[in-house]
Parts: sequence; C-alpha cells; structure tokens
Amino acid sequence: MADLSKGAAWMKGEILPISEAKIGVTDWGVTHSDIAYDVVPVVSGGFFRLDAYLDRFMESLAAVRMDVGLSRAGIAEALHQMVAASGLRDAYCAMVAARGVPMIPGSRDPRDCGNHFYAWAVPYIHVIRPEVIAAGAKLWIAKDVRRIPADSVNPRAKNYHWGDFTQGLFEAKDNGFETVVLLDHQGNLTEGPGFNIFVIEDGIVRTPDTGILEGVSRRTALEICTEMGLETRVEPVPLDRLWSADEVFLTSSGGGILPIAQVDERLFGNGKPGPLAPRARDIYWDWVARPAYRTEIAYPA
Amino acid sequence: MADLSKGAAWMKGEILPISEAKIGVTDWGVTHSDIAYDVVPVVSGGFFRLDAYLDRFMESLAAVRMDVGLSRAGIAEALHQMVAASGLRDAYCAMVAARGVPMIPGSRDPRDCGNHFYAWAVPYIHVIRPEVIAAGAKLWIAKDVRRIPADSVNPRAKNYHWGDFTQGLFEAKDNGFETVVLLDHQGNLTEGPGFNIFVIEDGIVRTPDTGILEGVSRRTALEICTEMGLETRVEPVPLDRLWSADEVFLTSSGGGILPIAQVDERLFGNGKPGPLAPRARDIYWDWVARPAYRTEIAYPA
Repeated sequence: MADLSKGAAWMKGEILPISEAKIGVTDWGVTHSDIAYDVVPVVSGGFFRLDAYLDRFMESLAAVRMDVGLSRAGIAEALHQMVAASGLRDAYCAMVAARGVPMIPGSRDPRDCGNHFYAWAVPYIHVIRPEVIAAGAKLWIAKDVRRIPADSVNPRAKNYHWGDFTQGLFEAKDNGFETVVLLDHQGNLTEGPGFNIFVIEDGIVRTPDTGILEGVSRRTALEICTEMGLETRVEPVPLDRLWSADEVFLTSSGGGILPIAQVDERLFGNGKPGPLAPRARDIYWDWVARPAYRTEIAYPA
Repeated sequence: MADLSKGAAWMKGEILPISEAKIGVTDWGVTHSDIAYDVVPVVSGGFFRLDAYLDRFMESLAAVRMDVGLSRAGIAEALHQMVAASGLRDAYCAMVAARGVPMIPGSRDPRDCGNHFYAWAVPYIHVIRPEVIAAGAKLWIAKDVRRIPADSVNPRAKNYHWGDFTQGLFEAKDNGFETVVLLDHQGNLTEGPGFNIFVIEDGIVRTPDTGILEGVSRRTALEICTEMGLETRVEPVPLDRLWSADEVFLTSSGGGILPIAQVDERLFGNGKPGPLAPRARDIYWDWVARPAYRTEIAYPA
C-alpha cells in the first residue's frame, strides 16, 4: 500500500500518492489555466459544509462550460474515497476540472476538448498560520497591482488565475507583511490569495459585494456575525474604510476567520485585534463541529 | 527508443514522449498559473529568430522573479537536444518556467518555491489553418469579455492566464467565427489567443502599443512592412479603425502573418483580403528561410 500520509489524489478512479498526481503539460488546464476548482475543508474526520462547496463547484463548471462526465454525487463519492484512503483527519481537499486537450488534432476550439476531473487532498493548510494570528498578522494593501476585473475573468467561477495575487504577495513579503489584499480599478477592496476580507466599524460588518469569489467561509462568517447580533452589509468597501475601522478580519476555508492586527502602517487594537473578530473565530470552530454542517468520512478500520 | 513523432519534452535533463510529460497538480505553475513561457517556431529543421525568443523568455523570468537554475545557453541547449531527438522538422517548441512548490512546508511565500524549467515540442501549430486563411478567415471582436489589464497581469511576461481569451473564443465559435480579438477597458484593440493584430489604412500600418505581448512575429511583421515601404505606427488602435481599415492581419509564431477576410459583419476586399497582407505573408516565409535568422538543428543521422 502506497504512503498517502503526505496527501492523496483521485485520478480516473484511481487513488494515488500526491507526489504521483500529475497533469499533462499540453493540457489546456495548464497552457490556458483553463480550470475550475473548489476546496472543501476536512476537520476532525468530516467535511464542513460539503453541499455548499459542491454546489459552487457545479456552478463554476457550468459557468466555464465544462462537462467532466461525473455527477455531483459521483464527485462527492470520489472525494470521500480519496480522503478516507488518505487517512487524513484534517485536510485541504481540492476538486478540479480541467479543459483537457482537443479531441480533434490541431483544433483551437475549446468546445472540442475532452474535459476531465481530478481531486487531491493534503494535510490542512492555514492561509495564515495560527501562531502568526496569535502574534498579530500584518496585511498589506497591494500598491502596484490591481485585482483582475470580473469582466475579464469571472471571479465567481473559482479559478487559478493568480498572477495578480502572486505579484501582490511578493510586494507584501518584500515589505515584511504576511499576506495581501488587492483593490479593484475603482479603489475598492476585493480579496486576497485564498480569502475574503471583512471590516467592522461601530458594530456594522462590511464585506465587498463584487469582483470577488463568494466564499463559503465568507457566507459562514456573515451568518455568524448575524447570530452575534451584528448588522452585516454586503456592498462596495472603499480602501478608506480600513483607516476608520475598529477591526478587520479575513475568511478562508484554510483557517476560518482570521483576525488582522495591522494593515499597512495602521495598527488595530494596539496590535491585539478584538473583541469581535476573535469571538467570531471561536464560533467558527464551534460551527465546524455542528453535525448539521458535517459529512463524516468513513475511514477504513 | 520511445516514439517522439507526436512530440517530445525535456524534463530535468531527460527527453520524454510528449504523452509522458506532466507537471504535479500541486505545483504553483498549475494552482496559481504561476508560469512564464515562450514558444519558438521550428521551420524546415531550424529555429526562427531563436535569440529573440530566448531574450524575451529571460526577460519574462526576471519579471516574475523566477530562477530555474539554467543559463540562457543551457536553455538553448535543452531546446536543441529535444527537437533534434524528436526528429520534428516543423514544430511548435515551448520553453516553460514554473514556480514549483514551497521548499518550506506550509509556506505561502512565492520566494520559498523551487522554480523549475521544462520544454516541449509538438508538430507545428497554425493559429489559423492555412486552408481557413485561403477560404477567408473570420475574426470576432469579443462583446462580453475584456482583456485582463496590464496592471493586473503583465502581458509582456508571456503567461498562461487565458481565461479572457477562452471566454472570447467561446463567443467567436458560437457565432461561427474562427478566432477572437479582445478590447481593453478603454475600447482599444489589444490581442487575441496567441497573436497580435494589425490594421492597414491608406498605406499606414498600425498595431496596438500597450496591454499586449510584444510578439516576435509582431516585430518581424513591423520590419517587413517597413521593408515594403509602408509607414508603421505602434499606438493605441480604437475599435473604429477596423471599420475604416483597408486590410487587417494577425501575427503569430504559429503561422506568421495571417490575412483576415472578415471582422464581425465587415468584409475586407469582398472576402478576398489584400493586396498588402498576403504579400507580407509571403515575405514572412522568405524571412524564415534567411540564414541570418535561422539556427539549424543537428538532427541525428
């Protein structure tokens, strides 16, 4: 039996060690980044809100006009089999659809390609490591790069077009910051590499409405804030809101709710963010344990 | 000996059949489309303008801050070895640099990744097949999608962020057109999937200056037009220029100079484009045969 402890993949019905999971260099998934994907977190042996992630993945597939020859149930079954085989109790579980290559040689028509599905899971990834959150995470607002606009690449169909994020990450890291958020061409906040952003001011919680992925963790955070009795507004959030805000946090399936201690030169809570975002963070982990949101994985005995 | 007639790849110093050339599904080259690449044409057993393509590839690598541990000469040698082994006399030869994966587990810092190089060659690809050019190629101007702006992803560092092109290609194909050109957010022409665009009006040849890849075939076409005694202007080209133009052509390393017979509902030369673009097309193929521009490949006897 192969060692799957570092991760596993599902490819064409086979379970492979993650190191053997590969895609052809001429696949349009690589050469055109023509891929729709999604990531569902596995926590303590169960998927969290699997239905919501599958719904969004199926919507992304429709948006980019891919047919991978698998039903929603078939995809769910592949994820189950793969994570169970891996033995991973806490995992980052990716489902991926790639355009493939033209089935008519020489064609440049995306409609001629043989789309295909694969999945992979690796030990749980934190977008920002918990110890960094605890010490006070620093967020950079990108200066030299703007988020790819929604009328160029649809951010609601989750995709691997990360060139803008990567350039922003270089900026952030070069300046000693942990991660980055990008503005749109109108100067409003959008999102960062793998997360959405929230701003709290006078008990009102705001998060951008357009030019972003509608994250499942973002939705969970909005629901948690409502449960906490906070007013939530999904609307354009200008950069300036960061300077008047009381708190800032990020949301991601890689860590849930992530309080931020500093944005550019602005400190929040004198470097100890709170009180609302850390409380929401704790509630997120309570929600992850709620049976109604969990799909338990049947690991081999 | 493996069959390389369908294509060959160079990976970590090994020559492989193209069907075996793969990249890991967790490589940031896939998951972040974090790749710089270039493509040099091989025609009749020699590279065309190899130095120009290598120069641009090295510039792209610097722009995206990748170090693949190979010199320019080492990359040239890899391409030579690979194409020679393939036996292909006419080929599309890609050189690719990928970000790789973080060498520090759990890192989200692009500076921590182990960048790597690979190359592949397949039988020559025509962006528009010669028989389609002869019959009259139809070009669509995308209506629902705009080119990714240069301040989001730098188009001069040749990259695989093709989501905008792919959506445009779907539009074009759905409308019965061969290929597509995208406008920028100011309404000027940019480029299409794998090519630049030129417009001829009253003996003046115009091609866009910004928001595009500075194609080597574009440069060759500008030089050929100058040699033909035409005035060339590299400047913003508004969409309206297409409606007043006498001729339109595309340039690509996959086919050289490609005269266009129709843009949207506008016919050129009553469906028989000319006279300048077809003449430039013939001159392109003369240039490809010029020894000064060729690097002959030493195929095995």
